[in-house]
Amino acid sequence: MRIALLGGTGDVGEGLALRWGLETNHELLVGSRDPEKARDAAESYVGTVSAAGGDATVKGFTNGMAADRADVVVLSVPPYHVSDTVESVADVLDDDDVVVTPAAGMKRDDDGFHYHPPGAGSVTALVREAVPEHVPVVGAFHNLAAGRLADLEADLGIDTLVIGDDADATATVSRLAEEIEGLRALDAGGLANAAEVESLTPLLVNVATNNEGMHDLGVRFS
Amino acid sequence: MRIALLGGTGDVGEGLALRWGLETNHELLVGSRDPEKARDAAESYVGTVSAAGGDATVKGFTNGMAADRADVVVLSVPPYHVSDTVESVADVLDDDDVVVTPAAGMKRDDDGFHYHPPGAGSVTALVREAVPEHVPVVGAFHNLAAGRLADLEADLGIDTLVIGDDADATATVSRLAEEIEGLRALDAGGLANAAEVESLTPLLVNVATNNEGMHDLGVRFS
Repeated sequence: MRIALLGGTGDVGEGLALRWGLETNHELLVGSRDPEKARDAAESYVGTVSAAGGDATVKGFTNGMAADRADVVVLSVPPYHVSDTVESVADVLDDDDVVVTPAAGMKRDDDGFHYHPPGAGSVTALVREAVPEHVPVVGAFHNLAAGRLADLEADLGIDTLVIGDDADATATVSRLAEEIEGLRALDAGGLANAAEVESLTPLLVNVATNNEGMHDLGVRFS
Repeated sequence: MRIALLGGTGDVGEGLALRWGLETNHELLVGSRDPEKARDAAESYVGTVSAAGGDATVKGFTNGMAADRADVVVLSVPPYHVSDTVESVADVLDDDDVVVTPAAGMKRDDDGFHYHPPGAGSVTALVREAVPEHVPVVGAFHNLAAGRLADLEADLGIDTLVIGDDADATATVSRLAEEIEGLRALDAGGLANAAEVESLTPLLVNVATNNEGMHDLGVRFS
């Protein structure tokens, strides 16, 4: 499978590229507005996976070229770039592509981090509005600490919540998630349940901030 | 310590009463608007703890009498009864009491459960507004499945998130939480972080609903 990581030079994209690079044979397409930056990142990811004993296929492209070539398109960009990024690739998305959104809207104040969704109700809803209607959208990978994901020696042992309205697309993304060792995909229902899923991200940051020795936190449901 | 469980005939109150009854020597005061109902529940809890090999001190009272006698007052009532319940006991709360709120506002629609806070911004904020200013409020025990808590043979192995603006009160409630075997208290910051904590409750319900074999879910941060 070909997986595009738009904004894949950022920390979430890096973590997913390294994990899939080490543990699967998928072709990974790192996208960036700057293709030179994407190629540099891709080369670096191949080196990191190689040092960990793996053999990854990772290439760098513009976001548009990465999305055009991919079966699954992960929007690994900050929430405030989600709309622009989708707009820049909307023309090349096909009916049998799947768009994956891992972003959560947050704001910080003196007390901690808070869920701060866009007017659409959630970042997921914003993505659903921006992506052409015939292309399925799935929410996943919101609650993964990027640093831990990118550290290939770190055990995961955590869950990711998957939401979607298209059963096939949701199943595809859940399978991709579970190909990462130590990551379990749990179904949290339809896209309408996005706000509760995205709210977990600021909670994780608040718990990490307030408890000694806790950082790069994930959750396990049991 | 004397712990009042207001609305303690309900399922959250029952779970906490049984766990503290089995595993601590605290005096448990079950409160209800109907003292007869409270006394029946107290008697039943003593019997359940006794059958599990414990020796609990549990007595039934009106909510007001339970709150008057207690050091820690747990508002184990549904979110829509929180304001009325606080109002009914406000006169008997002392400066050195601690009020604990475990409720989360939710609504259900065809998609699942959603966080639905009152106008104050969270149930916790509503409680803070209703409780006399000099009495500390702590949020805790939101994300515990009542059925699992009340099943004394069920292992917990989960976390509860504690929020509060008064360090001593927060520490007291965290200690009480950790006296329950298998329950770990994590500090999620001040009361201003309540919405993210309360949002976890509908998420747990959605995950339990959508994944076979998962019910009475809790979470473990790691």
